[in-house]
Amino acid sequence: MRILLVGGNGTIGKKVSKHFEKKHEVIIAARKAGDVLVDIADSSSIESMFGKIGTVDAIVCIAGEAKWAPFNELNEEDFYIGLRSKLMGQVNLVRIGQDYLNIGGSFTLTTGILADHPVMMTVSAAMVNGGIHSFVKAVSLELEKGQRINVVSPGLVEDAVEKYEAYFPGHNPIPMRKVINGYVKSVEGKGTGEIIRMYDNQ
Amino acid sequence: MRILLVGGNGTIGKKVSKHFEKKHEVIIAARKAGDVLVDIADSSSIESMFGKIGTVDAIVCIAGEAKWAPFNELNEEDFYIGLRSKLMGQVNLVRIGQDYLNIGGSFTLTTGILADHPVMMTVSAAMVNGGIHSFVKAVSLELEKGQRINVVSPGLVEDAVEKYEAYFPGHNPIPMRKVINGYVKSVEGKGTGEIIRMYDNQ
Repeated sequence: MRILLVGGNGTIGKKVSKHFEKKHEVIIAARKAGDVLVDIADSSSIESMFGKIGTVDAIVCIAGEAKWAPFNELNEEDFYIGLRSKLMGQVNLVRIGQDYLNIGGSFTLTTGILADHPVMMTVSAAMVNGGIHSFVKAVSLELEKGQRINVVSPGLVEDAVEKYEAYFPGHNPIPMRKVINGYVKSVEGKGTGEIIRMYDNQ
Repeated sequence: MRILLVGGNGTIGKKVSKHFEKKHEVIIAARKAGDVLVDIADSSSIESMFGKIGTVDAIVCIAGEAKWAPFNELNEEDFYIGLRSKLMGQVNLVRIGQDYLNIGGSFTLTTGILADHPVMMTVSAAMVNGGIHSFVKAVSLELEKGQRINVVSPGLVEDAVEKYEAYFPGHNPIPMRKVINGYVKSVEGKGTGEIIRMYDNQ
């Protein structure tokens, strides 16, 4: 398969990339360094990326940001950081990417445990994740040419424990192998409209 | 209680208003006619509304729009209709309204069954509803002064069957009494961070 991996240099992205490269051709897209550059918060950048790479069999996105801050400190514009990037960035990747995804190809988006189990300072990030979950369910009804779409929702992953554990009191770190399998399930499986929750009960 | 009901003239809003008026003071806010005018898609309009009405014991929102159309016909700007209105409109109502909500007061937002069970042409509406669900869970952790927040997610309501049943094949209409009770549970109960799903298994 020819796989486009947006965010292939991140904590999760680099492990997913390494895994898929064993069996597939992986094109890394990222903001600063990769086979192709893209800023998903800018839909013209997404269009330009697809213009360069052409068609693929799978589009995986492990990118997008949202502002973390106490609710009382978030102004209206702060919310739009997440809406433009992690939410509409992923929506636009599907909206534009459907024309570059081969018959039977798959989209795999990324959210996170905050959609279901938020912690302090994550109002904006949780909201964006929850929006993507329902987006995936809804758009799976309408994709054409046998195209599929799923979303992987990881918990606090092992490789990010040092950086984030203080924000996630009592959360059990998720082995990277388990998270990678979420992406494998979506790309190499046959499911669509699935929210692949990669965490145990929290 | 002094209850602010945003969207008090809509299909659900007018029934909820009629019910609460039996025991409480209800202030109807709407875009075109009401005790006070507001357009929730405009945060300065929300600020102006609260400046006029002062403090309340409950803020209920049954308002906000999103564009319904086939996914292939939705452009980027179409998605922002729902993001600015039903999503950020309700977020801004909480963000601004927390300063006008009395100690122990409640917010009650509104979404709909599409968050969990989308139908054709509802990608944008489903996404917004799912975002609000996670927003409510997350912000309930951070509200101060004992303020509570819940969201009522109605199915296809009886009073809207004629207008919408063609879009919801096989959905069982929800009695208005049951939907009203969702709002009563949120306003007069003690729960917070709850998604009050007012529909049977679909």
